[in-house]
Amino acid sequence: MTIPGEFTWHEISTQGESWRSAIEATLALKEPLLALLRRNMDRPIFFIGCGSTHYLAQYAAPFFQSLTGTPCRGVPSSELFLQTDTLVRPSERPLIVALSRSGETSESIMAVEKMRARGCEALTISCYDSTSLSAVSSLTISIPGGQEQSFAQTRSFAGMLVAVQTLAGLAAGDDALLAELSALPDMAPEIVARAMPLACSLGSSEAFKRITYLGSGPLYGLANEATVKVKEMSLSVAEGYHFMEFRHGPMALVDGEHLIIALLSEAIREYELGVLRDLKQRGARIVALANDDKGLDGLCEATFTFNTTLPERSRAVLYMPFLQLFAYYRSLARGLNPDRPRNVVMAIKLQGTEMIR
Amino acid sequence: MTIPGEFTWHEISTQGESWRSAIEATLALKEPLLALLRRNMDRPIFFIGCGSTHYLAQYAAPFFQSLTGTPCRGVPSSELFLQTDTLVRPSERPLIVALSRSGETSESIMAVEKMRARGCEALTISCYDSTSLSAVSSLTISIPGGQEQSFAQTRSFAGMLVAVQTLAGLAAGDDALLAELSALPDMAPEIVARAMPLACSLGSSEAFKRITYLGSGPLYGLANEATVKVKEMSLSVAEGYHFMEFRHGPMALVDGEHLIIALLSEAIREYELGVLRDLKQRGARIVALANDDKGLDGLCEATFTFNTTLPERSRAVLYMPFLQLFAYYRSLARGLNPDRPRNVVMAIKLQGTEMIR
Repeated sequence: MTIPGEFTWHEISTQGESWRSAIEATLALKEPLLALLRRNMDRPIFFIGCGSTHYLAQYAAPFFQSLTGTPCRGVPSSELFLQTDTLVRPSERPLIVALSRSGETSESIMAVEKMRARGCEALTISCYDSTSLSAVSSLTISIPGGQEQSFAQTRSFAGMLVAVQTLAGLAAGDDALLAELSALPDMAPEIVARAMPLACSLGSSEAFKRITYLGSGPLYGLANEATVKVKEMSLSVAEGYHFMEFRHGPMALVDGEHLIIALLSEAIREYELGVLRDLKQRGARIVALANDDKGLDGLCEATFTFNTTLPERSRAVLYMPFLQLFAYYRSLARGLNPDRPRNVVMAIKLQGTEMIR
Repeated sequence: MTIPGEFTWHEISTQGESWRSAIEATLALKEPLLALLRRNMDRPIFFIGCGSTHYLAQYAAPFFQSLTGTPCRGVPSSELFLQTDTLVRPSERPLIVALSRSGETSESIMAVEKMRARGCEALTISCYDSTSLSAVSSLTISIPGGQEQSFAQTRSFAGMLVAVQTLAGLAAGDDALLAELSALPDMAPEIVARAMPLACSLGSSEAFKRITYLGSGPLYGLANEATVKVKEMSLSVAEGYHFMEFRHGPMALVDGEHLIIALLSEAIREYELGVLRDLKQRGARIVALANDDKGLDGLCEATFTFNTTLPERSRAVLYMPFLQLFAYYRSLARGLNPDRPRNVVMAIKLQGTEMIR
């Protein structure tokens, strides 16, 4: 007999192994990856995905661009496939990095096939190695430790995220970054264990009717990923915004039933705190995720700090356990099954314009 | 004595004059605009804005790129200012097109000043001519017919949208497009009048607890703009998605209380209809906005068609009256004042990291 949510719980809890698997899988391909990047030097990179992996692409593009200087875009696979001319010049041959847990999502395959026909190469980052997507790619980073049985992506997302960071470290020839990343897997059990009680108490509260996740730069993608987790698992109303954008209109909805989950940075913390002060004044309740609690005094309902000595660029995956556990506990508190979200499937496959059931 | 919402109603109703003003203002600057574009040839274009104008940037970038072949990005002003290296290479000198109703929004001014210091030029599109933003720009397209007294942007947004289309027509040397656009202002009264009864009956209904606006390609930006209208004016829960992205997780929330407002295209209508069929099967109620009702039989709660002979590229602004009126009537039905949304101000001004009150 299965307990509701046991797959999800296990997959979130063991994600350190997924992070480790991602680093190992990426480093094992160092030479072919560097050769692929060299062949595509001076070409932009398009990170593509669907749903969770589109949000990972929103993390990957600004992160990779700031580290390597390569122009990067993070776009939905469907938009690259269906609206190609709005994103790519006819003469352009971007390198496509396709992110897909299963490697079988139709829209990503269709986008890669279309770009290949225009002379582009593709790299797949996935949890499996012999997939339809890898069949149309020059190379596949496969993360076996990220494989999952539940529908909502948790450790697979975290693993692919660490793979993107490792790829960026290789591309930038940044051995310090690679050393920082290698310290992450051993941190996972403590971060997961410490996130559980807070995620459980906050996730179980029905005092909050709407949730806004705030993150700027690469963290915007993680804020969006958090929304889809809490939607899939707990059917909650949730949105992601860049910190400064939230003031320009959406702030209208803020009141005492509005929970703000802030993915704080170090680099622009003062601007982020300015936004949080405005939201608190309008009655919002705030949960802050950050490496340290600098400037947070008296501002938050609760704070979850990572307390690491790692530089900011290496810390992104540390936000994930709390965000995933919050959705998981909210799902359980609502009597839902986190493993099998309503209206959600493992990978969307299309036949022509229709979804295959 | 003022009637609640009278400014908003007037500004939505008279938007044809804003469209006309936008075309005239842009064409009057034809020579200096062409000179500016020539000086920045072979450079990418960044369209920037905050809130509504960020969503306009999300329309402008893919539209401009598909028409002209120039690589374009639509990004929040704050991200260009605070996260510059995630978006622009140090050696790159993009042309900045700053979109701002007031020309006084701090984040846009800060972004333009930062990029000017790196050697970039800026073009401002605004409703006023002597503003802080135009003072740091090489050229300003000012649309007096778009000026407003209410806080939520309606005819100003529509005017700036038509100015972007006209600019693209000039940049592409596409006289056919310019002729198509010149036909728009005369269509406005009929489109507005015909949208009113439907927007009123749907907007007044509390059967819908959540609203999702769907749009692909450039229409994604208009879908997002619709969310901020209905949030500001009526405090409704609303989100915007690319059509195909909505299946990948967010669809979990769909049930009989979920209203889908679909901004249908012509080019990829079959894919869009595939998504709508899936949503209908899950109980969603659907309102379609489109030029014609091809393929919509039996799918929708209601349909609003433009019935024009204009090609798709010229039609974007025709979506706006219904979307704005829906928010307006929903505001009135909820006993709110559309002219003065909660927590919303005319233009956000910062002093350091703090908002000035």
